[in-house]
Amino acid sequence: MLSLDRIYHASYVLKNVIRTTDLIYAPHIVPGAEVFLKTENLQVTGSFKVRGAYYKMSQLDDEEKARGVIACSAGNHAQGVALAAQKNGIPALICLPDGAPISKVEATKSYGAQVCLVDGVYDDAYRRALELKEEKGYTFIHPFDDEDVIAGQGTIGLELLDQLPDMDAVIVPVGGGGLISGVAFAIKSLNPNIKVYGVQASGASSMFTSLQNNRIECLSEVSTIADGIAVKEPGSNTFALCSQYVDEIVTVTDDEISSAILSLIEQQKLIAEGAGAVSVAAAMFGKVPVAGKKVVCLVSGGNIDVTILSRVIKRGLLKSGRSYAMNIELLDKPGQLKGVSSIIAEKGGNVISIHHERASESSDINGCYLRIVLETRNYEHIEEIKSALTKAGYRIS
Amino acid sequence: MLSLDRIYHASYVLKNVIRTTDLIYAPHIVPGAEVFLKTENLQVTGSFKVRGAYYKMSQLDDEEKARGVIACSAGNHAQGVALAAQKNGIPALICLPDGAPISKVEATKSYGAQVCLVDGVYDDAYRRALELKEEKGYTFIHPFDDEDVIAGQGTIGLELLDQLPDMDAVIVPVGGGGLISGVAFAIKSLNPNIKVYGVQASGASSMFTSLQNNRIECLSEVSTIADGIAVKEPGSNTFALCSQYVDEIVTVTDDEISSAILSLIEQQKLIAEGAGAVSVAAAMFGKVPVAGKKVVCLVSGGNIDVTILSRVIKRGLLKSGRSYAMNIELLDKPGQLKGVSSIIAEKGGNVISIHHERASESSDINGCYLRIVLETRNYEHIEEIKSALTKAGYRIS
Repeated sequence: MLSLDRIYHASYVLKNVIRTTDLIYAPHIVPGAEVFLKTENLQVTGSFKVRGAYYKMSQLDDEEKARGVIACSAGNHAQGVALAAQKNGIPALICLPDGAPISKVEATKSYGAQVCLVDGVYDDAYRRALELKEEKGYTFIHPFDDEDVIAGQGTIGLELLDQLPDMDAVIVPVGGGGLISGVAFAIKSLNPNIKVYGVQASGASSMFTSLQNNRIECLSEVSTIADGIAVKEPGSNTFALCSQYVDEIVTVTDDEISSAILSLIEQQKLIAEGAGAVSVAAAMFGKVPVAGKKVVCLVSGGNIDVTILSRVIKRGLLKSGRSYAMNIELLDKPGQLKGVSSIIAEKGGNVISIHHERASESSDINGCYLRIVLETRNYEHIEEIKSALTKAGYRIS
Repeated sequence: MLSLDRIYHASYVLKNVIRTTDLIYAPHIVPGAEVFLKTENLQVTGSFKVRGAYYKMSQLDDEEKARGVIACSAGNHAQGVALAAQKNGIPALICLPDGAPISKVEATKSYGAQVCLVDGVYDDAYRRALELKEEKGYTFIHPFDDEDVIAGQGTIGLELLDQLPDMDAVIVPVGGGGLISGVAFAIKSLNPNIKVYGVQASGASSMFTSLQNNRIECLSEVSTIADGIAVKEPGSNTFALCSQYVDEIVTVTDDEISSAILSLIEQQKLIAEGAGAVSVAAAMFGKVPVAGKKVVCLVSGGNIDVTILSRVIKRGLLKSGRSYAMNIELLDKPGQLKGVSSIIAEKGGNVISIHHERASESSDINGCYLRIVLETRNYEHIEEIKSALTKAGYRIS
């Protein structure tokens, strides 16, 4: 049975392994609310996962430790297990689907774990891991549905009660539910008045759906940029704990997650992965009541691929009016480009890219299209530029 | 005269204003060295500047406070002064060149300062600030060449001695030299055995050059992505303090700075601006001796424009083989694009953008060019794709 004792014990065991991550005040994230960020993206391995994995392994007996552990993950859990195994002196084998990003495979190896690449997707890797567990007698380290793992994640709840004892609410990312189960149990046990909200990606809302239907539901597919919480089915332990201790679970869209990632970069100088930013997205987009309240957003991890990060930034800029792409119809005669570019320059737009194309099907035979991408200040600035161009006779589409 | 007393006093005065920023162990930045990051990018306003600005203002007399302060800056100093003025209840006017990034202007305004946009570049804004100071009786808050400002920045030295008393060295970004003057004075006063290294951008190495020539030199121009330390001339106070207390100043290139920014994102989940990352660049690229040592890299700020960040990431990906742009010469007949894209797909390359152009001057009249940007795994992966295309008869340029 999960107990406060066990979470305190985990906290003691983890003392020299993990960082007590900073709680950072974030005054500009939600006007009218006091938002604080629990920066588990700055945890060793870049996510909270090492807490649960390490505590779980520390509780194995000597024989189990000697046989080693196995896990299946393409992400944070893999790195958490690998580092925890290294620090416990336990051999570890991590099964990954062979399409996993090279950066994650390399990170897992860098912590000294053996990696087994399995043909296919996550489910194939999972099956192979279970086979290997049977064959070789490894202990399987579940990413969330395990009481020791949950106790390890619950240590974050204790830290929060220490760092901000008078918080009104904490908002927690939810995939399989291990993190929120531990955090909610710790917090509600000590102060039931603190609200605990969970957040899922709308494209992977298995716990949300399960709690609504009051039974464990398995989604047929999941799709979200928050790959760290793209879980098809909650665990039975985590489902039970969430039913009892979590006040509400809400969902956020990928666009909302992208905006949150961008805000964390610009306002707080922090890199969060999609899964780590859902808590901030929920606060920013009013999914949970935060006005006038002291609220902690748990930023659970920061392991985002830089190519995805780059796309998120691009999308975030477009969404916030700081980048704008437009097509302008021109007559194919000299001086047209000059006319357009003078107007844009005058209005303070900064051209990033330009593409000039003749004779598209829909345009006049003498016409051509100009596709321009601009850096802009905000939506009003975009409107200003558009109206100046329209006034000068250019057709924007 | 600068004294340890004054830095201790600043430290006391700043207690409820600034954050004692975390010192974070960064195991993967330089193999074979113990690197720690002093995360002043996570300071309020996103840089250390608020320390000096606030302490300076706290030392003004009531009449000076009532008249208000003026500063000239397009960056971190502006935000530091604005917040410090707000917290001290002092009116503040910040002169900015009118080309300053909107994001910085908005940030400065958001802390309650008045902004005066001046036609021209930084030097014009500076002149206007001095005029206004004379006209209106404002106190000018110098960005670095002021003993109270230096004492404020020196509080970081005290924090480091508290957070990692047995450090061997600290590496500090240098623009005008205010930060390193304070830090070096504090550290050397308490433990002269700790090395203090400064780092400048090679395109703006005014302190480096001045120390080498043993007199204050003024550069005719500066050019670097580290705009926060693009200073043409050190101050007389800071030059004297650096001469006495700094062990060595080194320089890093813009490419080295970009790599450091990318490493901080990927390994540490932290956003640093160019100026903030030069210390990490110096450690990564062996500019100062770090092997086997316990070294603090001071990450001085994180206020980087996201559009620049986006470019830095792009450049970093290209440099590390994780993105590749190529031109392929095609015959202008059906099926060519399909051929190319099949080969790329087979080899696991991910097409990001494609641009198809006919009849360039240098190609055959029936030829055309395909410009493709790919996401790749590493340099070997790029070579694999290139050789498969070449083998199939496509010409890559």
